[in-house]
Amino acid sequence: MFDKQMQVSLANQFRHQHHGTKLLILPNIWDALGARLMGKIGYPSVATASVATALVNGYLDGENIPFRRLLEIVRSISSSVPLPLTVDVERGFADNTIQLQENIRLLIEHGAIGINIEDSLPDHKRLYPIKEQCRKIEAIRETGIQVGVPLVINARTDVFLTESSASALTEGIERGMAYKDAGADCIYPVTINNYEDIDRFVREVGTAVNVLLMKSIPDLKKLRDIGVARVSLGPNLLSHVLVTMKEIAEGLMREDSSVFFSRELMSREFRDSLV
Amino acid sequence: MFDKQMQVSLANQFRHQHHGTKLLILPNIWDALGARLMGKIGYPSVATASVATALVNGYLDGENIPFRRLLEIVRSISSSVPLPLTVDVERGFADNTIQLQENIRLLIEHGAIGINIEDSLPDHKRLYPIKEQCRKIEAIRETGIQVGVPLVINARTDVFLTESSASALTEGIERGMAYKDAGADCIYPVTINNYEDIDRFVREVGTAVNVLLMKSIPDLKKLRDIGVARVSLGPNLLSHVLVTMKEIAEGLMREDSSVFFSRELMSREFRDSLV
Repeated sequence: MFDKQMQVSLANQFRHQHHGTKLLILPNIWDALGARLMGKIGYPSVATASVATALVNGYLDGENIPFRRLLEIVRSISSSVPLPLTVDVERGFADNTIQLQENIRLLIEHGAIGINIEDSLPDHKRLYPIKEQCRKIEAIRETGIQVGVPLVINARTDVFLTESSASALTEGIERGMAYKDAGADCIYPVTINNYEDIDRFVREVGTAVNVLLMKSIPDLKKLRDIGVARVSLGPNLLSHVLVTMKEIAEGLMREDSSVFFSRELMSREFRDSLV
Repeated sequence: MFDKQMQVSLANQFRHQHHGTKLLILPNIWDALGARLMGKIGYPSVATASVATALVNGYLDGENIPFRRLLEIVRSISSSVPLPLTVDVERGFADNTIQLQENIRLLIEHGAIGINIEDSLPDHKRLYPIKEQCRKIEAIRETGIQVGVPLVINARTDVFLTESSASALTEGIERGMAYKDAGADCIYPVTINNYEDIDRFVREVGTAVNVLLMKSIPDLKKLRDIGVARVSLGPNLLSHVLVTMKEIAEGLMREDSSVFFSRELMSREFRDSLV
């Protein structure tokens, strides 16, 4: 099932999508159907969110889902859409470089052509030393080369989660530049959230930058204008889905079907056309 | 992982829920997270929809999903909520009685305490002869007894899908009575959709009746008043979810985040409290 030539092509397409005239938007999904829906709407690539792949399978985020189960999800999605698939693998589900490289190899063999790798400890309160994180990124890059698929590495820095905004920007830029030199294709300062910070981050890091879609960031057109390459939704598409389910289910619980019927129902034809 | 005493208790609870003063409403879900959400909202039991479990895994409805994968879903859901779980198994994924009984045993061992079994051929255009369907129901009932779990059988008749409304009602009632005698706990005339038909069906079949929630049926309070025991959503909760995802993703595709931001976001605390 591992078609190396196809994956080389998808990896190259995905890397290219970071440098086009259009903003690369990734509405993070968690299963084959979500991926099909995004393909049908016209998205050129799909991404998972670790929160979402964990929760829908009954696990909390934080590498609690068995890695084998994550691989099954990756296979299910990659075999359902002919699009580049990038997978959020948190810290790589590994305690050492050998395990990390094995996991990256398995992810590629199950159909991933890109990954997100983050630099905070499991508590999200402290960061790994910059050199240690760079060695992880180098090891991931090396695995892609060994397998023969030019994996697209999105290096997430959690510096805005762990530090005050002022010091976070400086350290985030330092980390971004180091991760880029270690082989990352894109830097993801998660929760960076104001125009000035984003603008400076993009200019100083000097490679593709991924921004999380939040209310406090500039609008999408402005992000594109200041050179942001990629915008992702993280767990928030799943949050919207859960709100929809909750509103309908709470209505029905009160024997009130108005919420259920007030919303447009997808036609069976459209729904089935997704598979 | 198979706790027989627990499942006996859950099966008895679920059977009892068909005969209480409250209408039993089943907002059909497809994964552990959906089940947790329904439990949190206060639903006393959870059900899958075959369309949903198939589609989210990349398969069309119609027993295309590997039965092993369906069992994994059943395990994932049943181990995530301490609630009765009834599983839509279409025609049982079996060509003969031995396979059918083996599959029912596996479903129970993976945590199901109820099932939906339908009486139309895979094309949904013709029905199995009534005696043949009764033998299937008897075989399922017998398996429950052998395993020691009083499985709740929801016998779906697809007569309203295959015949005109006039003849469907007569044949549906005949089938419902026969399925009840064969051991079904509840009869599900899928897409029955007007007050008179539902009222007559409930009175003549003389056991619990399941109605699919559709715009053309009476409101929930009236359904309860005329003695309907159970209302399910079939694939329509998933349809609503897909519409939500589609609207948000189409907006973002146009670099328009207003749809995304106009909706309430679920708090991380609530979301994580589900797992």
